Amino acid sequence: MGDLVYEGKAKKLFTTKDPNVLLVQYKDDATAFNGEKKEIIEGKGALNNKITSYFFELLAEKSVPSHFLERLSTLEQLVKRVTIVPLEVVVRNVTAGSFAKRLGLQEGRPLPFPIVEFYYKDDSLGDPLILEDHIYALEITSKEVVVEMKEQALKINDILYEHMEQHGIRLVDFKLEFGLDHAGQVLLADEISPDTCRFWDLQSGDKLDKDRFRRNLGNVLEAYQEIEKRLGGQ
Amino acid sequence: MGDLVYEGKAKKLFTTKDPNVLLVQYKDDATAFNGEKKEIIEGKGALNNKITSYFFELLAEKSVPSHFLERLSTLEQLVKRVTIVPLEVVVRNVTAGSFAKRLGLQEGRPLPFPIVEFYYKDDSLGDPLILEDHIYALEITSKEVVVEMKEQALKINDILYEHMEQHGIRLVDFKLEFGLDHAGQVLLADEISPDTCRFWDLQSGDKLDKDRFRRNLGNVLEAYQEIEKRLGGQ
Repeated sequence: MGDLVYEGKAKKLFTTKDPNVLLVQYKDDATAFNGEKKEIIEGKGALNNKITSYFFELLAEKSVPSHFLERLSTLEQLVKRVTIVPLEVVVRNVTAGSFAKRLGLQEGRPLPFPIVEFYYKDDSLGDPLILEDHIYALEITSKEVVVEMKEQALKINDILYEHMEQHGIRLVDFKLEFGLDHAGQVLLADEISPDTCRFWDLQSGDKLDKDRFRRNLGNVLEAYQEIEKRLGGQ
Repeated sequence: MGDLVYEGKAKKLFTTKDPNVLLVQYKDDATAFNGEKKEIIEGKGALNNKITSYFFELLAEKSVPSHFLERLSTLEQLVKRVTIVPLEVVVRNVTAGSFAKRLGLQEGRPLPFPIVEFYYKDDSLGDPLILEDHIYALEITSKEVVVEMKEQALKINDILYEHMEQHGIRLVDFKLEFGLDHAGQVLLADEISPDTCRFWDLQSGDKLDKDRFRRNLGNVLEAYQEIEKRLGGQ
């Protein structure tokens, strides 16, 4: 294995022989509330690796470019090396989580159109909500990149929302991260999994995502397994 | 005096014989941090009445419509009755306050362009920052009203920034509120005073605004008096 480039809360990144390719290793660590709540959930890493690979392959078929190259093993993926844009891009279809809390709304209210939000990726600040004008004024990234990320995020939402509905799941909201490759192209990066999406069972409304961990609802691994099963258990 | 229509933290509103006109009475109450910090600062109400009247008259000369009709007495103003849009409109020229804190910036950094922010007026939620898409999705007000408020806010900023600079003061940021009159016209409302603006002395950098109260810097009334003096002490 190459050198450790970065260790995040849920993944490690290593160099490979190819300077433009990194190896991602998924971890079983679950964290919430900016790392305040921590646990090991055995099997989560493998499931998120599988589910993320499934989504990145689905998106590639629909011409959404991402950093994903291939799933190597139970816990490993090969990805293109990118420089992560320090913005979390959140798309919301239904009121839930911090959005509902901040604006005093009940969870579960469908929004009349998908809302894209940007959060400034900075743990020490608690990843604050940020306006597009803030991004430009502080020169966090260019307008072209923001417009591209927003467009991609809405396209990804269209694809995933419909796909999950066909599998009996409502895509409530999700978080994306993007990076720039060596040529400056904007590529979807990070992961798409129950760690980064809110998935609600269409019939029962049951939560099948990380909220089971955040809110101590139990059966965390079972929820992630259910998502994998619905997607074909490949 | 007519019936009390509304009592806010710094003003009371009363009916008059004309159903389209209200009487505003300024109070000496100073509050901060959503009402957690409270004090009476004798003379503040009279100063804010004077300063607000001065600014509303200045803006009227520059064709900015507002609810202001006339200053009646030391503490009283007549204004057009409007329905307040539940959004605080903040314009920023320089990093300071919650903006600097939230994004981890030093105070005093000039922004490359004025930034307009909207906050959802709701004390129980702590007046959260809100995106334009949130405003539309939650139907807080129409797109036309938002666009009009933003345009007016930037125009007001241009006028006030230049005017204050001529009086040796940097307009760092300020908060506006708007209302709709019976014909649906968007009118600037509330007040413009050291309670709602950050004013820094151009030479010394001294704070001449409510931050003296918020941050226990002392000489609160003296700062407000200084602003009034610079504006001509009319």
